[in-house]
Amino acid sequence: MAQETVVLTGDRPTGPLHIGHYVGSLANRLALQNKYKQYVMIADVQALTDNFEHPDKVRKNVLQVGLDYLAVGLDPEKTTIFIQSMIPQIAELTMFYLNLVTVSRLERNPTVKTEIKQRGFEKSLPAGFLMYPVSQAADITVVKGTLVPVGEDQLPMIEQTNEIVRSFNRIYKTNVLPEAKALIAKTSRLPGTDGSAKMSKSEGNAIFLSDSPDEVKKKVMSMYTDPNHLRVEDPGCVEGNVVFTYLDLFDPDQKEVAALKEQYQSGGLGDVLLKKRLIDVMEAFISPIRTRRQELEKDPNYVMNVLLDGTKKTLHVAEQTMYDVRRVMKLDYT
Amino acid sequence: MAQETVVLTGDRPTGPLHIGHYVGSLANRLALQNKYKQYVMIADVQALTDNFEHPDKVRKNVLQVGLDYLAVGLDPEKTTIFIQSMIPQIAELTMFYLNLVTVSRLERNPTVKTEIKQRGFEKSLPAGFLMYPVSQAADITVVKGTLVPVGEDQLPMIEQTNEIVRSFNRIYKTNVLPEAKALIAKTSRLPGTDGSAKMSKSEGNAIFLSDSPDEVKKKVMSMYTDPNHLRVEDPGCVEGNVVFTYLDLFDPDQKEVAALKEQYQSGGLGDVLLKKRLIDVMEAFISPIRTRRQELEKDPNYVMNVLLDGTKKTLHVAEQTMYDVRRVMKLDYT
Repeated sequence: MAQETVVLTGDRPTGPLHIGHYVGSLANRLALQNKYKQYVMIADVQALTDNFEHPDKVRKNVLQVGLDYLAVGLDPEKTTIFIQSMIPQIAELTMFYLNLVTVSRLERNPTVKTEIKQRGFEKSLPAGFLMYPVSQAADITVVKGTLVPVGEDQLPMIEQTNEIVRSFNRIYKTNVLPEAKALIAKTSRLPGTDGSAKMSKSEGNAIFLSDSPDEVKKKVMSMYTDPNHLRVEDPGCVEGNVVFTYLDLFDPDQKEVAALKEQYQSGGLGDVLLKKRLIDVMEAFISPIRTRRQELEKDPNYVMNVLLDGTKKTLHVAEQTMYDVRRVMKLDYT
Repeated sequence: MAQETVVLTGDRPTGPLHIGHYVGSLANRLALQNKYKQYVMIADVQALTDNFEHPDKVRKNVLQVGLDYLAVGLDPEKTTIFIQSMIPQIAELTMFYLNLVTVSRLERNPTVKTEIKQRGFEKSLPAGFLMYPVSQAADITVVKGTLVPVGEDQLPMIEQTNEIVRSFNRIYKTNVLPEAKALIAKTSRLPGTDGSAKMSKSEGNAIFLSDSPDEVKKKVMSMYTDPNHLRVEDPGCVEGNVVFTYLDLFDPDQKEVAALKEQYQSGGLGDVLLKKRLIDVMEAFISPIRTRRQELEKDPNYVMNVLLDGTKKTLHVAEQTMYDVRRVMKLDYT
């Protein structure tokens, strides 16, 4: 029997989602929900691994991320959205999987190594943070996920998950856990408005899906272009010019974008004119999302109920997975 | 309001219990169950941290340990016996506590350091084994345990638990988790029949609570005494002589034991005579336990139901603890 494709993906609720999330993952999920069974997890437990001193921040953003999901068009009839902390089976699986991974293997994980440096955790590393790839293996396998959309930099996480799956199936002489395939995002990462490689809330270089027209305008107007393009008549550089990167992705009239690029490179096209076009383009993109979001914000109970309904569905699947796991681990006492 | 004293203790189900367990902990629990609320945990999840490749062994011994508990007189009306793997809240708490402990702190734990060496885990340390003191903090706090009977060598475990409790209460501005006090066993560790410091199944130097009269006899007859006491008429040494250590602990006639010691030291008392006395003493001690155990073995369903009933009671308390924990961690979505 061919295995059903089950997609597992999600976000850490540490801030509202931005257009970088849209380009990098949300757009993809909108397509995937029409093809496969899809679970989208709001990863509050994982968010706590480096925000454990800020539970209010995590709590607040669970609803914000839920709002973003529904506003962009994730359909609760097609996509099961759930809250990680409400699935105890993830913690139970994590405990079992920790036996199958060595400490040195965790310390070698290149993604975690980078993140440890970013967070200044080198001298004092919380054990929960080092372990989180094991918790991710539990996130994926608790719903028997087989397809996990990730960026290139997250590939070591899928490899770690599959190592655990293979060890588990070998030791407990079973095939209850499926391996997962990575689905590498086609679109490369969206740069921040300041030109840095990654858009992120903490860098202050993000355009949020919930930004007001004024905020969008302000952020586009201060956007990084070509620092050497000082006068309108000078030729400007298109590569690394964030305004063009965004136009490439969001402007529906790509023929016109090509013409603008040519004009910009030969000189005679000012940044302000270009930015005004991008403001219109971004506003056309964000406006319907913002409107839906504002509607949903009026009824936060509805949004929370969507999350709780999805969590209930996920719990049901998680219980079935644990039933299988307990059986092969001989922990099925009842 | 004064905090109720709640005892939490337990065993890893890796073999049937022996008289070393009786002297070191079971006797103490029989006394504690008349004074305090007492939970005794069959730690199958912890047993898996260094037996994850042997789930059958762990499974089989859950019932064996349950049999030993009831045979020595743990009373399910007074002592709540439960199975660790059936309390998912322990795994959930462990995940939260892992954020509050650094990897280097875990690596400094002197008890774990010793155990890593004993198990040959230096080169390849399963993450679950390094983490198990954090899981123990969850075991204790899930029932809001305040008194934990331990050997001296386990004191670092209680200290680790209390560090976590203090961090948790400080960060989440609460006092929902109580600190635990160690209750150091009065009786020193029982040596093995071979004279080595510790009685243990793996050393083959244990007298089990389930041993037959023949096994008891054989084990006492091969017991370590004074290697220099070659002829009956020679003076013998009492210190380090296991037969006398056991007589000290199990012989009801301590006046006679004192007289025998004197005779042994001055010469004229043979080991065989002494061992025959110890066989009678041990048989008088084990016989009623063995009889009760054999009765219970006829109805393993009864024993399993005792464990499941205790687990159900513990689940109820664990749910209350998690309710408190979720509230202060802002994870109370419902």
